[in-house]
Amino acid sequence: MIIQLSQNIQEQEKVILLNKLSDLNIKSNIITTQFKNYIVGIPKTDFDIRSIGNLNGIEDIHRVSDAYKLVSKKWKVNNSIIDLGDNVTIGGDELSIMAGPCSIEGEKQIETTVAHLVKNNIKIMRGGVYKPRSSPYAFRGMGMDGLKLFYKHCSENGIKVITEVMQVSQVEEMADYVDIFQVGARNSQNFNLLDILGKVDKPVMIKRGMSGTIEELLASAEYVFSNGNEKILLCERGIRTYESAYRNTLDLNAIPILKEKSHLPVVVDPSHGIGLRQHVSTMALAGVMCGADAVIVETHENPEIAFSDGQQTLYHEQAEKLYQKLNQTHQLYKSF
Amino acid sequence: MIIQLSQNIQEQEKVILLNKLSDLNIKSNIITTQFKNYIVGIPKTDFDIRSIGNLNGIEDIHRVSDAYKLVSKKWKVNNSIIDLGDNVTIGGDELSIMAGPCSIEGEKQIETTVAHLVKNNIKIMRGGVYKPRSSPYAFRGMGMDGLKLFYKHCSENGIKVITEVMQVSQVEEMADYVDIFQVGARNSQNFNLLDILGKVDKPVMIKRGMSGTIEELLASAEYVFSNGNEKILLCERGIRTYESAYRNTLDLNAIPILKEKSHLPVVVDPSHGIGLRQHVSTMALAGVMCGADAVIVETHENPEIAFSDGQQTLYHEQAEKLYQKLNQTHQLYKSF
Amino acid sequence: MIIQLSQNIQEQEKVILLNKLSDLNIKSNIITTQFKNYIVGIPKTDFDIRSIGNLNGIEDIHRVSDAYKLVSKKWKVNNSIIDLGDNVTIGGDELSIMAGPCSIEGEKQIETTVAHLVKNNIKIMRGGVYKPRSSPYAFRGMGMDGLKLFYKHCSENGIKVITEVMQVSQVEEMADYVDIFQVGARNSQNFNLLDILGKVDKPVMIKRGMSGTIEELLASAEYVFSNGNEKILLCERGIRTYESAYRNTLDLNAIPILKEKSHLPVVVDPSHGIGLRQHVSTMALAGVMCGADAVIVETHENPEIAFSDGQQTLYHEQAEKLYQKLNQTHQLYKSF
Amino acid sequence: MIIQLSQNIQEQEKVILLNKLSDLNIKSNIITTQFKNYIVGIPKTDFDIRSIGNLNGIEDIHRVSDAYKLVSKKWKVNNSIIDLGDNVTIGGDELSIMAGPCSIEGEKQIETTVAHLVKNNIKIMRGGVYKPRSSPYAFRGMGMDGLKLFYKHCSENGIKVITEVMQVSQVEEMADYVDIFQVGARNSQNFNLLDILGKVDKPVMIKRGMSGTIEELLASAEYVFSNGNEKILLCERGIRTYESAYRNTLDLNAIPILKEKSHLPVVVDPSHGIGLRQHVSTMALAGVMCGADAVIVETHENPEIAFSDGQQTLYHEQAEKLYQKLNQTHQLYKSF
Repeated sequence: MIIQLSQNIQEQEKVILLNKLSDLNIKSNIITTQFKNYIVGIPKTDFDIRSIGNLNGIEDIHRVSDAYKLVSKKWKVNNSIIDLGDNVTIGGDELSIMAGPCSIEGEKQIETTVAHLVKNNIKIMRGGVYKPRSSPYAFRGMGMDGLKLFYKHCSENGIKVITEVMQVSQVEEMADYVDIFQVGARNSQNFNLLDILGKVDKPVMIKRGMSGTIEELLASAEYVFSNGNEKILLCERGIRTYESAYRNTLDLNAIPILKEKSHLPVVVDPSHGIGLRQHVSTMALAGVMCGADAVIVETHENPEIAFSDGQQTLYHEQAEKLYQKLNQTHQLYKSF
Repeated sequence: MIIQLSQNIQEQEKVILLNKLSDLNIKSNIITTQFKNYIVGIPKTDFDIRSIGNLNGIEDIHRVSDAYKLVSKKWKVNNSIIDLGDNVTIGGDELSIMAGPCSIEGEKQIETTVAHLVKNNIKIMRGGVYKPRSSPYAFRGMGMDGLKLFYKHCSENGIKVITEVMQVSQVEEMADYVDIFQVGARNSQNFNLLDILGKVDKPVMIKRGMSGTIEELLASAEYVFSNGNEKILLCERGIRTYESAYRNTLDLNAIPILKEKSHLPVVVDPSHGIGLRQHVSTMALAGVMCGADAVIVETHENPEIAFSDGQQTLYHEQAEKLYQKLNQTHQLYKSF
Repeated sequence: MIIQLSQNIQEQEKVILLNKLSDLNIKSNIITTQFKNYIVGIPKTDFDIRSIGNLNGIEDIHRVSDAYKLVSKKWKVNNSIIDLGDNVTIGGDELSIMAGPCSIEGEKQIETTVAHLVKNNIKIMRGGVYKPRSSPYAFRGMGMDGLKLFYKHCSENGIKVITEVMQVSQVEEMADYVDIFQVGARNSQNFNLLDILGKVDKPVMIKRGMSGTIEELLASAEYVFSNGNEKILLCERGIRTYESAYRNTLDLNAIPILKEKSHLPVVVDPSHGIGLRQHVSTMALAGVMCGADAVIVETHENPEIAFSDGQQTLYHEQAEKLYQKLNQTHQLYKSF
Repeated sequence: MIIQLSQNIQEQEKVILLNKLSDLNIKSNIITTQFKNYIVGIPKTDFDIRSIGNLNGIEDIHRVSDAYKLVSKKWKVNNSIIDLGDNVTIGGDELSIMAGPCSIEGEKQIETTVAHLVKNNIKIMRGGVYKPRSSPYAFRGMGMDGLKLFYKHCSENGIKVITEVMQVSQVEEMADYVDIFQVGARNSQNFNLLDILGKVDKPVMIKRGMSGTIEELLASAEYVFSNGNEKILLCERGIRTYESAYRNTLDLNAIPILKEKSHLPVVVDPSHGIGLRQHVSTMALAGVMCGADAVIVETHENPEIAFSDGQQTLYHEQAEKLYQKLNQTHQLYKSF
């Protein structure tokens, strides 16, 4: 049950409400986000919702049968739009495109990428500075130095930054240089990280786990929301299956299902989803046709020498063609 | 290695060739299809291809490193087009649509469906008369009586019939009433059935197994081709994964990969691929955007009372809207 | 609902019973096996079981909520024992061992294997004469000629024969030379094959499908039973997962679960279950510790030159050591 | 390549060695553990190992082709034994048993469990104080207060404590009250957590990820080792598959494979591996028969009222019977 509180609820009214909920054997979770105040009530037994609805200080009240609550569409019917500032939004009528290399490699590479994005009017750049790698001996990213360079060039050019955060202690130092925090597939159920990201007023994109379910992804989003941050993006990036013909199996079923179950915007990542450069564009277009609000795609001036994921990274020329097709495809999708 | 023989190869030349292959320690599989004559040579050791190329009676010769040979694009670069007669083809420039109920239920239902297809200019009707069912106590289809009714109404209206064949002994009796034999997911590696379907001059659509790999699907197609039938369609219909939010996980990655590896047309089945009526159309359109040559979709005048698979079957009105969108989407796809 | 009929039920009593069931909106499946007569009733609505229980000619009546009925332990609490004749049984107090090569390769190989089995007092020999192979160009087995040789040498030495049947048309000709028909993983849901095997009075071992569920395996067994054959063995042989460190993932959870849900004996196949010779014995012993009634294991005088599956086939010397350990492990298991 | 350095290597010799490696285009990772000093060299090109072997200060040098190095059995043939002090070890001749509740719930529960363990001579108690839960509204553990109580009662009774650590910031405060740090399945690739646990001189048990591969589990162990901590346990706890008859699919194949590939001890967790109380003991025994060095099992005085995982938790009486069977089974295993 979600109880949305009035902006001007009196402290005394709140006490009465919480007592009432306690009397009804309902566990109350008081939630304060950047936008509103809620109580998520987890009832231990059946109760009559009308006995609460009459109390003062309540704007709205909804029963939500899903395990996740605040991210459910059963409660909030209208799609959420994430505002990144400077008229850059995700989740509205326009398709959003995020592009850039797998790893930030140096200033030269950042400049080249930014120039490519500016030329193509792409407003969000991706790039990793903390890289989760299976082997401890592999390149693990440029860290904060890389991030500062990354942010500097982007912000000077009106481009927003999305980058992966890997642990709690990085959140604070990264926050000033990031427009969207990305939670990677391996951290999709790192609940401490999700908790802390719920306490920051920055959008968070959560990738589905390697073999994460739809339910788990939404529950992870609930962690962020219930800690106070409503600005969440959900990302489908392929799941692990028995098939070895591609890196992952992009699960496009997930896109209409996530849009049906949640009000949060959905991003598709075709680069990890198939892992083969020659098919990334195809899968990106299919993702848009499934209703994705945004596409995140890896591109590099010279993928052959990229520090990581080169085999799934588009050349800039390929990316340029893709951007146009994405927009055309999105136009057709919207016309239906 | 594939050796394509000349139409007018002399018996004596053939003997010389086979002896030569035997000398080179190559196992020869002589293959005669409705179109051409081939030898598929499986070398046990390395050999010099030039020593064969000079012989008489050979039109062409190709090394194919894949486990499958005749269905590989490494040998035949041009896409195969399956001709069903009366100007109905699959695999060319036009998108093909196959629609109809899960199960054939009776003459009235056939008539209603045919009327729906005629109205919408759909040229291929699907419908099962032999139904693979997990439980022996479930409805198992109308059998030959149903098929004859099905074929009668379709052929009178210029509509082609695709239906599932489940066992070797059905092939002969069904052949006169079928335009495309469908091999279901559970029979995707029923090699005896594939063998016999290779000996019939009717197109065969092979569904990927429940957890079949791309390699296995192509190897199953190789069974049909190597038995003499070049008219093969490959069908992606969703795979089995841990995700329980939908019936199957439609693996759209498979479509560009199959098109890359094989010259055979690829069909997408969004009905089984997601298993939820409200999302079938979305996944169908995504399938077309991935490059599918054809879509097979379940539709019924009243899915609520369908004998089987009602929950994933479109109402005729939904299907009508889908057909239009499919064609628009295919136009966009072709324009890229 | 399962109604077990009296041996001496009168025809008139049967008519009354069927009419009664029809009145109650229950679909009746009349089943006659080598042992008994049953009616499996599939109710379409709720009904009062007492209104049937009073009728004449009924020995017993059980509600079974599972999708499978006759193979369920909810109905038949005592474990079934499969009698192969000559005091060879499966499913009782003794552990059964089936051993032999993947493929029957010739008389010499049969003789060597039989000698090995006789020496070790192993009463059941495995060996394929019809081989399901992904590629049409691979060795597909010696067929009936091989089977006749196989059976001749075994029957002369008091050894029972288990071998795979791949299609309906083989059943009749094989029946005289087979003690247990094996249904392979790829045919686990070949319902026509299961139907026909239900009409033969020979034990049938059904392997779980590549990615078959427990429910599906039991439903496949229900096909055989409901067609008239109660002599069924269930075989766990590994499932397909994302893990590539072994050929399949032996799912030993399945063994106690199958024993809990069904009265049928359960066989474990460690050879396919892990696919690596050096670990086959370990997994066989673990299978016994899980409660398997029988073990089926691949052994060959010289696995390095075996026609198929050599990498997972034990040398005879390894197999000898395994047999002893299997018996010791089974003793310990029984003592618990 | 692993270079084990002499205890008394001179600083000057080290410089020469590192320069030599740099000349050979080998990336050097200098590793200092609680036991020894190593250099893990990652060569970028081919090189002649003899040119290094002659240098001073080197005890041993091994090529290791695996992606993981220090945890590989290719380098260290003898099994590692983890010493917890007070004669409690894991990985030697004796089977180790870890038992206790899913969650620490309060002092009374700890006392009851400790009494149960003392009575049965079990030397290691499990219990969670930080619980990873899908839903943010679920019980998340008693935290440090619970851990201190847990440790107090255990240490007073000669029992070692294993408990899950979820994030970097917990490591330091937990270290004084923990004998083995457990890394949960969801954190199996939380590389920052693994890094920090490599810097502590406490044993670490790493659970395989939900859908983690054998390679990934070993790579995670390499993180801990290469950061300086050699005391590592690997834990198989079931993987995620399509099968819904049990919570997870216990992958016992993993046990002999891990023992073959690595020198680290292997633990089996049958409680999570099957998730059904009535079958936990069976799977525990099978795990021992596969060669597990230790078993971790959930037990509670009254599982019906346990805060979490009650359905897979043994009653104390069941656990008592299991301990005896485990030891008998291990005796048999060792006798082979």
